Amino acid sequence: MSNSIKDYAITTLASHTALQILKGAKDEGFKTIAICTPKSRRVYESYGVADEIIEIPTYQDYFKIESELIKKRAIMIPHGSFVSYLGHERVKNEAKVMYYGSKGILRWESDRRIERQWLKRAGVNVPKVFHDPKEIDRPAIIKFHGAAGGFGYFIAKSPEEFYEKIKEFPGQNEYVIQEYVVGVPMYVHYFLSPLTGELEIMSFDKRYESNADSIGRIAAKDQIGADIHTSYTITGNIPVVVRESMLPMFFEIGENVVRESKQLEGVPKGLYGPFCLEGIIDPNLNFRVFEISARIVAGTNPYTNGSPYSWLRYDEPMSTGRRLARDIKQGIEAGRLEDLLG
Amino acid sequence: MSNSIKDYAITTLASHTALQILKGAKDEGFKTIAICTPKSRRVYESYGVADEIIEIPTYQDYFKIESELIKKRAIMIPHGSFVSYLGHERVKNEAKVMYYGSKGILRWESDRRIERQWLKRAGVNVPKVFHDPKEIDRPAIIKFHGAAGGFGYFIAKSPEEFYEKIKEFPGQNEYVIQEYVVGVPMYVHYFLSPLTGELEIMSFDKRYESNADSIGRIAAKDQIGADIHTSYTITGNIPVVVRESMLPMFFEIGENVVRESKQLEGVPKGLYGPFCLEGIIDPNLNFRVFEISARIVAGTNPYTNGSPYSWLRYDEPMSTGRRLARDIKQGIEAGRLEDLLG
Amino acid sequence: MSNSIKDYAITTLASHTALQILKGAKDEGFKTIAICTPKSRRVYESYGVADEIIEIPTYQDYFKIESELIKKRAIMIPHGSFVSYLGHERVKNEAKVMYYGSKGILRWESDRRIERQWLKRAGVNVPKVFHDPKEIDRPAIIKFHGAAGGFGYFIAKSPEEFYEKIKEFPGQNEYVIQEYVVGVPMYVHYFLSPLTGELEIMSFDKRYESNADSIGRIAAKDQIGADIHTSYTITGNIPVVVRESMLPMFFEIGENVVRESKQLEGVPKGLYGPFCLEGIIDPNLNFRVFEISARIVAGTNPYTNGSPYSWLRYDEPMSTGRRLARDIKQGIEAGRLEDLLG
Repeated sequence: MSNSIKDYAITTLASHTALQILKGAKDEGFKTIAICTPKSRRVYESYGVADEIIEIPTYQDYFKIESELIKKRAIMIPHGSFVSYLGHERVKNEAKVMYYGSKGILRWESDRRIERQWLKRAGVNVPKVFHDPKEIDRPAIIKFHGAAGGFGYFIAKSPEEFYEKIKEFPGQNEYVIQEYVVGVPMYVHYFLSPLTGELEIMSFDKRYESNADSIGRIAAKDQIGADIHTSYTITGNIPVVVRESMLPMFFEIGENVVRESKQLEGVPKGLYGPFCLEGIIDPNLNFRVFEISARIVAGTNPYTNGSPYSWLRYDEPMSTGRRLARDIKQGIEAGRLEDLLG
Repeated sequence: MSNSIKDYAITTLASHTALQILKGAKDEGFKTIAICTPKSRRVYESYGVADEIIEIPTYQDYFKIESELIKKRAIMIPHGSFVSYLGHERVKNEAKVMYYGSKGILRWESDRRIERQWLKRAGVNVPKVFHDPKEIDRPAIIKFHGAAGGFGYFIAKSPEEFYEKIKEFPGQNEYVIQEYVVGVPMYVHYFLSPLTGELEIMSFDKRYESNADSIGRIAAKDQIGADIHTSYTITGNIPVVVRESMLPMFFEIGENVVRESKQLEGVPKGLYGPFCLEGIIDPNLNFRVFEISARIVAGTNPYTNGSPYSWLRYDEPMSTGRRLARDIKQGIEAGRLEDLLG
Repeated sequence: MSNSIKDYAITTLASHTALQILKGAKDEGFKTIAICTPKSRRVYESYGVADEIIEIPTYQDYFKIESELIKKRAIMIPHGSFVSYLGHERVKNEAKVMYYGSKGILRWESDRRIERQWLKRAGVNVPKVFHDPKEIDRPAIIKFHGAAGGFGYFIAKSPEEFYEKIKEFPGQNEYVIQEYVVGVPMYVHYFLSPLTGELEIMSFDKRYESNADSIGRIAAKDQIGADIHTSYTITGNIPVVVRESMLPMFFEIGENVVRESKQLEGVPKGLYGPFCLEGIIDPNLNFRVFEISARIVAGTNPYTNGSPYSWLRYDEPMSTGRRLARDIKQGIEAGRLEDLLG
């Protein structure tokens, strides 16, 4: 393989975190290719992040243009929309383009039950799971598998309430019942370079969810009269910093999760690149983790020009998108690109 | 007219968004003039954004110093406080200073009924309006015309509740009754240069309203005991980014609003410069728009050094204040300043 | 004393705001020393902010290494954790290292009753205090002295409710009963250099408290069923800007507080360096102040690379940590370091 970044391009689907991925790649000197739909093209042109745009009717048409990407020696940066549009099995079994990250990890993050095993082995403080609705003895959140956009949730405090509310979701038999942890949501954005083995914390965010983040604006009595329910559709992200004394704990948890990822079946290189632990900080400062994303998350989007943390370490604008482009650049120049591809 | 920016100055009332307007103008090379009151002078001196300060007892005394501004070839950047202190009719009929933007648009944004016509013609998804209190069949918000600072609102879910609550606002007969949309507030900051005709999205914010953004901190049972009502006084703004997949929609809506503005009576040049669509993203990701501001909004203030979006396009600090100063600079240098003045 | 910053080092305990303090000091050209525990060391190495790390088993062991700091001509930057771990009396009576700030002020900020006298003399709008639980005639918050992390609070609306709820805090007899002000929290970050006497406003934040900032995400009816109480544990901070027309008031209040600090017993130099007023903006835009921090606060952590305000004045990245390092640098170079030490 070539040791010059001029012989490669960075590409991704034009959605999710593509703006920072493409901008970061350009800042590191790469040629960038945005895979757009007719509707999204306008956005990526406006922000000037793509040297080339390949247009497809819908993102499901991705495989029609993959050979073109391969010809251009493009390296695909997978993000949540890429995995979601193609499905983790097709990504693993059919995608042939150079791919940054461990493909095998996608199975572990896409199924909440095995994801939980991984986190527990890493000593992460996960919320209690109730295996039978009859066990519900405290506020619990019921999440449906594969439910998109945050609609597939409800809260129940007892078996009775569970059986009453599940009626609103006919035919949905795949769910988990999880302890509902009261505390503030916190999303931790990690980065691990396989070239150095060093774990970094890039930034933090909280999501901006409709309507969860606005029903509190309605006085309690008006809410009750209007019979308003909480929904969790992600609409955006808000920047946040954490209490500095919690950083040692966040580093430790991240390192434990990475260490255990190397034991997972089908993930020979373990977890690397950007990933995110998604949890709740309770009033005793415990970090209760309910999910891991084993790739770049949209919560890094407030930091296209660097975060309060990345500015400390880098002293130049360093988004998570740019950080991974730099990893690829250093891998190429060191003749170690293979170590970064999954 | 001169083609050198040295022959002009940028001015505005020292409030609202004046810090970024003046800083942005200085960054583009303009001389800046802040029109201060005795109380505000201190602030604009501290931040060093004004080359010259003209002090007036109150902002209502603006017309006493306008001739001085004209002599200095100052270009006025109108913001919410400018329009609010002077009134849109005086701005249109009496102000003689060079003015950035379409004066005729102020009438359309200042009257919610005709503003709504404009938005509907542009295909914008506006909340339902009830023309008679008897029609109220879902949570509705009643807003009084010209009510300042967010006090002139209440929520009613039925005709009965409407008639009960309106008693608290004696003599207030000018109001609109609007569907109360449950979802997260989102403010989209656009910019359109008449020189290029290209629409840009500069940034997003959410307001920080007292007490709407804090009553949710009080447990529901304590709220009910204390009989706390929601109020909507703007105290500041919080930065936010949107879900990237929504950007094509925001561009499209903005372009439709601009296109229709050219059909509005008394607005020959249409809407240009900075403007803002103010709405709610509901849990189905619909953007329900309740207002348009046809000039720079205070929601751009978190971004005096650039936003997560402007950094992508400009690669240098680009506040909305600086963006419009650049527009003026390019207009002057191209001999097209007239195209920018209303 | 030497007039060269090469002969000095900047040091602080590795927690709270140490990242920005050490980064800011490096940016100003100082050697930096982080005092770490075995757990925190990892963090300060990762962000590369410390030229030297001194490790101690726990922060209570600080005095064992103080002579080493003195030998290195280190200047200690006190922050909330430094004061909290050592106690304000030991800081005043036993600490011998060069110390940036007025030590005498710590007594005034650590006791809410005398702190309140100071604020009232400065004309600050403080919430009403009830001297006897029997006087409670509106929502009141009861705060225990020295309670860490936000657990030592409850809300009561009447004497009856007070006597009922206090039972949950057996043995806690030291408390204040304060009017519970409904409005949005706002934290104002000031800086005053004794070299120039000029007051600056660096930035604003709101805290991110568990669970206060998340209970509103639970629909009112679910909250009531689950019997959820509010707690106020600080987990982080969120950036915010204020309505620009409020800045003159914030400058005025800050100047009044500084002026009155010079009359306080045991504080010959008055308050200087970074400080913070912590309050609520009510729906009438009154700023009701409930506390002052007479040193750098964690609310400045979102701004390690500058804030929307500091970028206006400085045009280079200027965190509060860097601002105070610059003050020390200018003091050293002007032969006035003594003026900065307490």
